[in-house]
Amino acid sequence: MNFNQEKLPNWLKRRADVTPDRIALEFEDKAYTFIDLHLRVLETAGRLSGQGMKKGDRVALLIGSHPDSVIIIHACFYVGLEIVMLNSRLTNKELIWQIRDAQPGWILTEAAFTLKAEELGEKIPNVPVFFKEELNRLEKVPNFQALDEFSLQDTATIMYTSGTSGKPKGVIQTYGNHWWSAVGSVLNLGLREEDCWLCSVPIFHISGFSILMRNVIYGIRVILLESFKEKEVNQAIKERSVTIVSVVTAMLNRMIAELQDENYPESFRCMLLGGGPAPLHLLEECIQRGIPVYQTYGMTETSSQIVTLAPEYSINKIGSAGKPLFPSQLKIEVEGREAVPGEAGEIAVAGPNVTPGYLNRKEETVQAIRNGWLFTGDIGYLDEEGFLYVIDRRSDLIISGGENVYPAEIEAVLAKHPAIFEAGVTGMEDEKWGKVPVAFVVLKPGAALSEADAIAHCRELLASYKVPKKILFCSELPRNSSNKLLRRELKEILENKL
Amino acid sequence: MNFNQEKLPNWLKRRADVTPDRIALEFEDKAYTFIDLHLRVLETAGRLSGQGMKKGDRVALLIGSHPDSVIIIHACFYVGLEIVMLNSRLTNKELIWQIRDAQPGWILTEAAFTLKAEELGEKIPNVPVFFKEELNRLEKVPNFQALDEFSLQDTATIMYTSGTSGKPKGVIQTYGNHWWSAVGSVLNLGLREEDCWLCSVPIFHISGFSILMRNVIYGIRVILLESFKEKEVNQAIKERSVTIVSVVTAMLNRMIAELQDENYPESFRCMLLGGGPAPLHLLEECIQRGIPVYQTYGMTETSSQIVTLAPEYSINKIGSAGKPLFPSQLKIEVEGREAVPGEAGEIAVAGPNVTPGYLNRKEETVQAIRNGWLFTGDIGYLDEEGFLYVIDRRSDLIISGGENVYPAEIEAVLAKHPAIFEAGVTGMEDEKWGKVPVAFVVLKPGAALSEADAIAHCRELLASYKVPKKILFCSELPRNSSNKLLRRELKEILENKL
Repeated sequence: MNFNQEKLPNWLKRRADVTPDRIALEFEDKAYTFIDLHLRVLETAGRLSGQGMKKGDRVALLIGSHPDSVIIIHACFYVGLEIVMLNSRLTNKELIWQIRDAQPGWILTEAAFTLKAEELGEKIPNVPVFFKEELNRLEKVPNFQALDEFSLQDTATIMYTSGTSGKPKGVIQTYGNHWWSAVGSVLNLGLREEDCWLCSVPIFHISGFSILMRNVIYGIRVILLESFKEKEVNQAIKERSVTIVSVVTAMLNRMIAELQDENYPESFRCMLLGGGPAPLHLLEECIQRGIPVYQTYGMTETSSQIVTLAPEYSINKIGSAGKPLFPSQLKIEVEGREAVPGEAGEIAVAGPNVTPGYLNRKEETVQAIRNGWLFTGDIGYLDEEGFLYVIDRRSDLIISGGENVYPAEIEAVLAKHPAIFEAGVTGMEDEKWGKVPVAFVVLKPGAALSEADAIAHCRELLASYKVPKKILFCSELPRNSSNKLLRRELKEILENKL
Repeated sequence: MNFNQEKLPNWLKRRADVTPDRIALEFEDKAYTFIDLHLRVLETAGRLSGQGMKKGDRVALLIGSHPDSVIIIHACFYVGLEIVMLNSRLTNKELIWQIRDAQPGWILTEAAFTLKAEELGEKIPNVPVFFKEELNRLEKVPNFQALDEFSLQDTATIMYTSGTSGKPKGVIQTYGNHWWSAVGSVLNLGLREEDCWLCSVPIFHISGFSILMRNVIYGIRVILLESFKEKEVNQAIKERSVTIVSVVTAMLNRMIAELQDENYPESFRCMLLGGGPAPLHLLEECIQRGIPVYQTYGMTETSSQIVTLAPEYSINKIGSAGKPLFPSQLKIEVEGREAVPGEAGEIAVAGPNVTPGYLNRKEETVQAIRNGWLFTGDIGYLDEEGFLYVIDRRSDLIISGGENVYPAEIEAVLAKHPAIFEAGVTGMEDEKWGKVPVAFVVLKPGAALSEADAIAHCRELLASYKVPKKILFCSELPRNSSNKLLRRELKEILENKL
């Protein structure tokens, strides 16, 4: 009788059956109902199937935020393909690494990424590259049958995240992970017929992707923006009946600045603020202006939110990320024991939205997930009433404009330069991006290097948001007795310097 | 890694942690927050545990609709007991049959049922009877530990239902069944912070019990009434910010009569109408008066709703029970094949809210649940767009001269007559036709009507084989505790009369 608990009807297909005529998606001046979307997805899925793609195969997507991408994602689900969501801001070196690791059978991309895609095609000749613009010319399977059901244990998506080591790991997200994430969120935020979630965060990140999942699971309208522009987001909230927006601190900052003295309409009910601890003054300003901020904590491994502050606590517990969503659990560990209230330690989470593990990384999986608990590496504490306060992400994580930047990855790139002996990276406060990376560099004896050259070197190998904004040359890096780099001290040196 | 999908945190305990200070329950002039409820439940669970009750044991509850019962139910969950919910309106003969079938270790009841309980104690001496009024005098386990998690596969409740055979069967409802029922409902009806569900249906039936589950899973306020009184229900809707009420046709009839020319407030957003096909004229009156009726179809075996009409179709698809809730599925079968649109057949349903089977009834279970589909025995059809129209419960089907006659259809026609308040139809043996329909009619106060006039009215609106051959006037119709018309009893009355 396990049939019942292991499978669910295909989400979009079911949605197109239950509420076909509701608006599903708006993009620029176009609108798509759920039945529109379903029919387009069916068409696309038939063509993917015509290329020999079948259930259990893996495809990498290098696509932007627009309706075609939404259609392609669901088409992959209709066929039963595992999707590797590639971050289009990465350099080709980074993308190639991920593709070689995930070994997809195909790369599906779009004309906007032609240059990138052509190089990928050259470097990884065994993985065919398709352009979405050419999909219509592809052969279709005559009687394509979409999956009627999704097995909750099956892999839906793989998203890469770097972690402390600096070596990216593919996080496996099952259909069950996405489903339970949506259910956990709805039991906290509620659901109204008139709900409309604005998506201006990248859909290749879980923050944006999870909005597309809620779209079909809840049957709500989603407004998709190609990228974040504060003016456009504010306009959509004011004029297009948006009720919920997902943001990170840097976005919220810019939205409030652009808003000036105006207010959001009463119908706007949730500013879901993720992506790391938010400065208190910003939260206070939001309260004063009546902006309904819900602080939240989540990551790729938890398929978006796992801890969110319930509305009744937005004032009394300002600065807290809240309590675990209904189906999930949370604890703080210090040296193998549970921390007492107020004591900081490693944040561990559990629940049906937590990843089963990392692709091809048994050891890292076993290390991160113990007895069903995911040890996040993030530092926080619970207050007397069990509210989570996140102190810092993984000690050294730099969150820059909502993107995770891992110092170790930048350090490794810098160290590749023939003139550089070693490098240490830390985050520096930045008005626009929240934080930006800054590098400390020790040169090899007798070597010479300019800041501009070091930056140019990084630019070749790293997505632009990871490139250090400043290079500080020094004679040695602060290290502890076991020679571990003390990034915390880099931060202090930096603060003293500025 | 299955840990994640098989277990959820203890619902009330989690709710008391996440939103402790919200009002959970109101009864008469008393109100309980979730933390209040949790602390009382913990106390009671400790005493049950003190009697030797432990996880996996079974207890039968013979209790009314009041806060103590809510506390006892959750206390059983805290210990991990399987609950047999006994219908307090049954005769002792019926109760004894059920208790012997379910073999609970204990019966827990209350002073109001002393007479019943004493006889049960005599007839089934091996099952000890406890009174809730005496619980406080019982020994408590010193350091009682409530279950932290519920396994979704575990049995939560057993409710007896007669089914077509007339022999009661214990329907097993797992924690998973109750959870998914609540989730399926929320994805259709939505969820608002200010939601308040009024429960005036018996909590020993799934209609009432499921409200108690939504209470803790959603974290919403529930107003509990000891029994259905139309004046009290209307008053609660008008004055106590009720947003959702579960009703059956007879209740709705009486509520509308009592409401007279008044209206419900705007905030009242859902009249969830279950318990069998509703007469069209009643639905039309509700539309005219702006009462937001959601027709629904469900049963003990589906842990309440499984098919519900989405709000946008309340007018266009009037009379339909709607489409399956998001995680569930529906089909109509005729002689082993799927029916075509418009063709009536047996309603089959599947989904994670469907019972794993009947207690101690392997054969009936295998017969009813095939390949994950529950064959309900009810008759209905799907229209071209897949909306379910429930024609009748199979047991009530009258086959007259080879033609299928569905009582509900005739009842609806009779109820359209201005002098008729409500009607019930059953079959009578007939030499010529095998069976013929006979109607029981309740007139409106002060109205007068002859048998000939009533028959003439039907003849205008129905094919001749559907016209009742006899009209019996009466002051009320036999209904069960959830106000469902008992056509079986009509049959008995008829046979005694003839």
